[in-house]
Amino acid sequence: MKPLLNKQTEKNAAALSAIAHMPTKSLSILMDKEFARDMTDADFMRVAAFLAQKSYDEGGCPIGAVIVDNGTRQILGKGHNTLVQENHPYNHGETAAIRDAGRIDFSNTSLFTSLSPCDVCTTLIYMRGFGRVVVGDATNAPVNSAPLQERGIQVDILEDSRAVELYARFRAEKPNQDLEDWQGLSAVNNKAASE
Amino acid sequence: MKPLLNKQTEKNAAALSAIAHMPTKSLSILMDKEFARDMTDADFMRVAAFLAQKSYDEGGCPIGAVIVDNGTRQILGKGHNTLVQENHPYNHGETAAIRDAGRIDFSNTSLFTSLSPCDVCTTLIYMRGFGRVVVGDATNAPVNSAPLQERGIQVDILEDSRAVELYARFRAEKPNQDLEDWQGLSAVNNKAASE
Repeated sequence: MKPLLNKQTEKNAAALSAIAHMPTKSLSILMDKEFARDMTDADFMRVAAFLAQKSYDEGGCPIGAVIVDNGTRQILGKGHNTLVQENHPYNHGETAAIRDAGRIDFSNTSLFTSLSPCDVCTTLIYMRGFGRVVVGDATNAPVNSAPLQERGIQVDILEDSRAVELYARFRAEKPNQDLEDWQGLSAVNNKAASE
Repeated sequence: MKPLLNKQTEKNAAALSAIAHMPTKSLSILMDKEFARDMTDADFMRVAAFLAQKSYDEGGCPIGAVIVDNGTRQILGKGHNTLVQENHPYNHGETAAIRDAGRIDFSNTSLFTSLSPCDVCTTLIYMRGFGRVVVGDATNAPVNSAPLQERGIQVDILEDSRAVELYARFRAEKPNQDLEDWQGLSAVNNKAASE
C-alpha cells in the first residue's frame, strides 16, 4: 500500500496541512520517505504555519514548530503553543516540538519555528544542542540570534507570509493573551493596574 | 471532618512526604489552612526534597520544586524532573511545578527548588515574573543569581541536607543521565566519542 503522500503527489496546502495535524509517530502512514526527502525548507515552515493555524482555530496562540532530521528530512517532533489549550504557562511552539521529539540527540536537526523564539526557547535551543534554527516570522518579534550564533548554531530567517499575517491578526485580536504568552499573567495584571 | 494535617499535628517527615506525593488540587483534603500557614521555608524545601526522592525512586533525576503563595503559604504547584519518566527532554523540577500551577500570576509567590536552576529555568523564572526563588542545593551546581537579582527577584539559599546528599549520590551513580539532563543527549554522545 502506497501512502497518500508519495513521490508522485504534490506538496500542496492540503498535503502540508495533513502533515501538521497527523501525530508524529503516525507520519510514516501518511507519507513515504521520498516525499519527506523532497520537502523544502519552505515546505517545513508551512507545516509549522499550519500548526500555528490549528492552535489559532482552538482559541490558542498561533505559533507552531517542526523538528527535522538534516539527513533524512524526516520530521522528528512538532507541536504548537498550548497556553490556552493545556492551561500551560510556558508551552510555546518550540517547547512543544522538543517535548514531542523526546530524548533524542538534536545536534543534526533543524528546528523550524513559525515565530522568532523567546528567551526561554532560545536558551533551551542551545542547551539541547540544536544545529540549526529557521525562523518563519521575524516581523512580529525580533530575532535574538547572538546567543545561538555564539554557540555555533546556524540561524536562518525564512519568512512564511501565512505565519506572519496570522500572528499579526492574533495580536490585534487578543493583545492580553499575546502579552501573557511572552511575559506571564503578572505583566497583564501590571498593565491593567497602570491603565 | 478535620484533615489529617491540622494545627495540632507535627510537621514531621511523614507529613511532608505525604504532601509531596498528594496531587496539588487535593492538598486541601490532606491539610488545613492553619497547617499550611505554619509551614516554614525549611518545611517547603523538605517537600521539594521529598519530590526529588520520589523521582529518584522512579529511576529519574532527583530534583523537585514547590511554588508557594507568599501570603497564605498555600502550595500552588509542585513537581519533579521527568526526563526518564515522561521521556521528556527538558522537564526539570521548576518547569514541572510551573506547569502544575498553570496560568497564574507568579509575582507574589516563592519557588522552592531542591537544586540550583539551569539556564532555561532561570530564564523562565524571570519571564514568568516570580518574586522569590529559594535554592535547596547550591553545592552540586552553582547558583546563577545575577539574571534574577538584576530583575528584582529575591534569591535565597537554604540548603536541605537530604537534597544535597541525594543529588550527589545520583550524580555518582548515573553521570550520563545527569549530563543529559543539563546539556542534552548530544553532550553525552560527544563525551562518548571523545573517550
